[in-house]
Order: sequence, then structure tokens, then C-alpha cells
Amino acid sequence: MYKLIKQENNARRGEFQTVHGTVQTPAFMNVATAAAIKGGVSAYDLKDIKCQVMLSNTYHLHLRPGDEVVHKMGGIRKFTGWDGPVLTDSGGFQVFSLAKLRNIKEEGVTFASHIDGHKIFMGPEESMRIQSNLGSTIAMAFDECMENPAEYNYAKNSCARTTRWLYRCKAEMDRLNALESTINPNQMLFGINQGSTYRDLRIEHMKQIAELDLDGYAIGGLAVGESTEEMYEIIEAVEPHMPKNKIRYLMGVGTPGNILEAVHRGVDLFDCVMPSRNARHGHAFTNEGCRNLLNAKYTLDDQPIDPECDCPVCRKHSRAYIHHLFKAGEMLAMRLTVLHNLYFYNNLMERIRKALDEGCFEAFYNTYSEKINKRI
Amino acid sequence: MYKLIKQENNARRGEFQTVHGTVQTPAFMNVATAAAIKGGVSAYDLKDIKCQVMLSNTYHLHLRPGDEVVHKMGGIRKFTGWDGPVLTDSGGFQVFSLAKLRNIKEEGVTFASHIDGHKIFMGPEESMRIQSNLGSTIAMAFDECMENPAEYNYAKNSCARTTRWLYRCKAEMDRLNALESTINPNQMLFGINQGSTYRDLRIEHMKQIAELDLDGYAIGGLAVGESTEEMYEIIEAVEPHMPKNKIRYLMGVGTPGNILEAVHRGVDLFDCVMPSRNARHGHAFTNEGCRNLLNAKYTLDDQPIDPECDCPVCRKHSRAYIHHLFKAGEMLAMRLTVLHNLYFYNNLMERIRKALDEGCFEAFYNTYSEKINKRI
Repeated sequence: MYKLIKQENNARRGEFQTVHGTVQTPAFMNVATAAAIKGGVSAYDLKDIKCQVMLSNTYHLHLRPGDEVVHKMGGIRKFTGWDGPVLTDSGGFQVFSLAKLRNIKEEGVTFASHIDGHKIFMGPEESMRIQSNLGSTIAMAFDECMENPAEYNYAKNSCARTTRWLYRCKAEMDRLNALESTINPNQMLFGINQGSTYRDLRIEHMKQIAELDLDGYAIGGLAVGESTEEMYEIIEAVEPHMPKNKIRYLMGVGTPGNILEAVHRGVDLFDCVMPSRNARHGHAFTNEGCRNLLNAKYTLDDQPIDPECDCPVCRKHSRAYIHHLFKAGEMLAMRLTVLHNLYFYNNLMERIRKALDEGCFEAFYNTYSEKINKRI
Repeated sequence: MYKLIKQENNARRGEFQTVHGTVQTPAFMNVATAAAIKGGVSAYDLKDIKCQVMLSNTYHLHLRPGDEVVHKMGGIRKFTGWDGPVLTDSGGFQVFSLAKLRNIKEEGVTFASHIDGHKIFMGPEESMRIQSNLGSTIAMAFDECMENPAEYNYAKNSCARTTRWLYRCKAEMDRLNALESTINPNQMLFGINQGSTYRDLRIEHMKQIAELDLDGYAIGGLAVGESTEEMYEIIEAVEPHMPKNKIRYLMGVGTPGNILEAVHRGVDLFDCVMPSRNARHGHAFTNEGCRNLLNAKYTLDDQPIDPECDCPVCRKHSRAYIHHLFKAGEMLAMRLTVLHNLYFYNNLMERIRKALDEGCFEAFYNTYSEKINKRI
């Protein structure tokens, strides 16, 4: 399903085929947590901003509207109107970051809903059943995402359990994909590498999960407390042990600079709430760095957010207008800035792919990696 | 500028020519209070939902971002990206409904901003200068909007003052339109009929303001406390005294049923926050009546909001999806429902015009006027 087209040092230009369309990689997935992109952006809007893959959250959709509802409505793609590939996470990250009073056992995790406190149990089988109900293109394995730093022995035991959970995920998905009521009988499964910041645990765990010959492999448990340098070191340590013929996904990362660094180290797929979350607070990404649109200096600035940007927002609206919308508390401020930021990310990936196609990624990387994280 | 094309009893089919485009009437103006339609809808979105005229609020824009800012940015049309006609209200209504501690004198009104409490003075000249800075197509005269019921003598004196203010508005606009820095030197002025619920005051006032031969005439001070029947009676009383060759605007009205009744009584132009405000609370207008999308019965309903509707939302999204978005607190819920409701209003006006063109408005009126206000 993953085809490596070209490689420049560790950076990979590839294609990832799915039943819902082919993804050109490296790619950034746009986050529609509760089946909508926060900031008033619809699945149809994603078409206009170069999105290739939509990502939705299993935990959120299980709680509301309920995965049974989404199943009855024909799955997440029909429900939202997004006709391209969708990746659903496993719920694991949210269970560990959002839910309250969680209790982890071998079977799975009991936790209290962050909405109304009611008790829920989720284990590998439950996560797979929910994701099968959602009918996503790609399901993620149910894992434990530890906060960094984690205690070595805890991390070791947790990794071992995550591996055992992965086997259960695989078995349950095989069973679900064979059922007649399954929306996407070709649903794919990605395994998730864990091991906190311990190189030996990371490498050992990666080797174990690679044995399952899954559809793709993710590096999870990063950007959760450790330094950026530690994150890059872990990617470098794990990467040689990731199958070359499988797509590689770095979960929840990150800034444009982080993404460039990770592509440079051999990663193909990304997701992050940063572009949409920052946008909702008035922070816009540009080719010159990050711009705070709430800044008074934009009051009379009739330039677009980014003069070099071709997004639907920069072609039509001025900084002064969007600045005013933020000051006036108009929702439109958020929508416009979210659209711009997501386009910026998706377009950055396109530029990365183009650089790889033309064999000049290293030059692109050297020029942009510093510039792109600047605040202006 | 107003051309009466066809008449069926009192109902009028017309065309209103402006420097920013011709408006087919009867028409509904879409409210962009602070230079944005609440619910994350942009001026460009208005193009997709059959909007002909955008309405913005002088009071809000004077406070934020300031009319001087909008003037420097090239006026409200350039600022928002809306290239059709724009009507700005005079600020009078908001001064009387939103502002605090107001003090009315012959010169004008001193009041405290509802945002930060700072003192502001606005009289006829100030209102005209602000609207000239905004560069709208149509400016509204500065008037006093009384709450109903009002005391007879108060209403009589207030009307007389509103007439004196109108003369001052006209003089100031003539002066402003001749200045070189004026964005729209062809800015038009509409007078506003007042007189609370007193027929004699209403008629007398209408006769007085008709003498000025303005570009259009509005009926103000309705839908502010009186019964619907009283409102219709006032329209019927005033209408024979409104110039036939001028466009007629009923301010701040109303439900689809109210609009039908007012067209039936000879009104051409409308505005109301109802479609967008109701939408933000989950109330959608349909051809069968009003639908509360928060209702649990829509959880699994895969039909569009209105199966008869051709709006961009009904062509793409289900009730179940929008119901979920409201429950999950997603902004997209509001955006989609606002788009639908505004389209519903704009499309209703198109149907009214079509019925008038075909000489069957009375039949349309009889069929729809009851049905259209129903809750389902």
C-alpha cells in the first residue's frame, strides 16, 4: 500500500494507497476531532485547502454522538461529507490526557467521561469495534501513551502491555473486517511505537511490532513533555528499525519546523491540533514566521496574512479585517485563520514533496527550517 | 432609482438601482452587524446564498474598529469583500436599545458605549459622517426609535425632533457627498417614519418626510413591543402616504410570515437578525415550518434540514450531522444553520418576486402565510 518513490538521505517521497484514495507523502492530516474541524470548517472546506487525509478522534466520537450513531449514518465519511481517506486514533491518547479517574488493567482502561463523568471501559477490542463502527480508512492500535518523563520500569512494562494489546487489536480487526455489517472491510491498522524517552525500549518495541507486518507504523508518546532534541533523538533511534516499505506516522507533531526535521529523519505522515488551535487564538503561520493577528499593528494593515500565500483567505481578506474580527469576537475570525493555517501546513507538505521530487529537499530544509518558526 | 415593474393589489415587484448594483425587490438584507455575519459567515459566502444587500451597523462599527479605520481601509465594501450594495443603519436604534445612560437633546444623544462605558455623542451630523466614512450605498437618517407603547405627547415631540434631525441629515449628507475624500459620493439617504402606534402621528410624520424627496423611505419603530396586528395596522395606515416611486423599507422585521404580510401591504425591503440569531440557537426555517435541530429526534435523521431546499447546506449535510455539531458545541453547527436560514429568507424573497412576476402573489400569499410560521 505504501510505495517509496524517491529518497533524499533519510527523507522519503512516497504514495500511500487506500480504498478511499491515494495519499501523496509526506502529508499532514487535518484534525476534525468531533467530526468537525474546530473553527467552523467543514469537510467540504478541506477540499479547498489541499487536505488529503482527515483525522477524527475515537474517544470523542464514542462519547458523542456515539459510534453506533455514526455507524448507522453510514460511517464518518458519509456523516461529515469527507470523501477522502480518514484516520481515526485509538482513543488511547485521550483516555490518558482527557479522561478522569482512569484505572489501567491488562484487559484495558476504565475511565470517567470528561463530559458527564460516566464510567467507560475501553480495551483493544473496544477501540477496534468503535473504529470499525466509524468506518475510517485507517484505525490506530490501542496503546498506552505515557507522559514524559516516565519511570524506566513503568515504561518497560507499559510497552510490553502495548505489544500484547496490539496483537489483540489485530485479531479483533481481522474479525471485524470479515463481518457483513462492517462499513469498511478494508480498514487498515497502524501499530504505535512507545517506550518514552528510552532508546533501548523504543528500539526493542519497534522491532516487536514490526513483526506483525501491519499497514503502517506510528511513533507515539512524543511531544508529551520531553524536549525537542530528545524527540529528534528518539526518531533517529527508532527510524532504522521501522520497515522501509511501510508508511511512518509521527503522532501529534508539531510546528512547521518539527515537521521539516521529522521528514528529514524519515517520517511520512503527521497530525497536530496546533494549526487550528493557534489560529483560534489569532496566531497565523506565514512563510516569514508566526504572526499574532491580535497585535494592534495590524489595525490598518491591508495586506493578506501572508502575501506569498494562495489560500482562499489570503486571496480575499486583509490582516486589518481579520484583526478587527478577532477584536469584535466574531467567529469568522477563527474560521478564516484556521483555514489559512491548515492551508499553510498542507501547502508546506506540498512544497516538501516538490523539493523531494526535484531532489532539492536538503536545500529546502536548510533554508526554511530556521525561518519557519520565527515570531514576527 | 426605484422602478415599479408590476403591482398586484398592494404588493410591488420592483428594481432598485444603486451605484453598487441593482436590487430586485422585494428583497431581504442580510445583517453583518460588525462587518461580519454572526456564525462565521463571510461576505463571499453571501454570494452563495442569494444575498443582494448586506446591512451593517453604524453604532457597532463606530465603536469597533472605528469608522475612521474602515474609511482608511477603503470603506465597508472593500473591508469585508462584499461588492454589492450595503445599507448602514443610522446608529439610532442601537443607541436606544444597547447603549447605557443616554441623554437626548435637540443636538443629539450622549450615551455610554456598551463595550467599555466611554461617553459618546451622536447627532444627525455625526451619524452621517460615520456612514460616509463607512462608504455604504445607502445611509439611514438618524432618528429616535421609541419603545412601544410610548406616551402620546412624548411620541409627538419625538417625531417632530426626528423630522428636524432628518433635515440636518440631508444637509450634512449633501455636504459630505461633495467632499473629495468621500468614498461613495453617490451615497443615498433614506428617511425613517416614526410615531409609535399612533396612526395620526405616523401619517403626519410620513407626509412631512415625503416632502424631502429622499432616495427611499423606511418605517421604523415597529416590532419593538407592539402586537403583530398593531404593526400591520400601522403599515396599512402609513403606506398610502409613502411615495409610490420610492423604495419602502420595513426595519427589523421579521418572521417569514411577517415579511409576506408586509409585502402584501406594499413593502419592498426588509432586514432582521432573526434568521441568523435563531440559527445560532439551532432553529432552522423550512418550507414546512421551524425546526429545532437540537431535538433528539434528529439524532439519526439523514435528511437535509429542508428536503425542498437547494442551499449549499441542504445539498451536503444531514440533520443528524448538524444535530451532533450543536450537541458537541462545534462552531460549524452555527455556520451551517446560519447559511441555511439566510438562504431560506433570500430564497423566499425570490419566490415572492417570481409569484409577482407571474401575477400569482395572492395565491402564494394565501398558501404560505400560515404554513410558514409553524413549529415542527
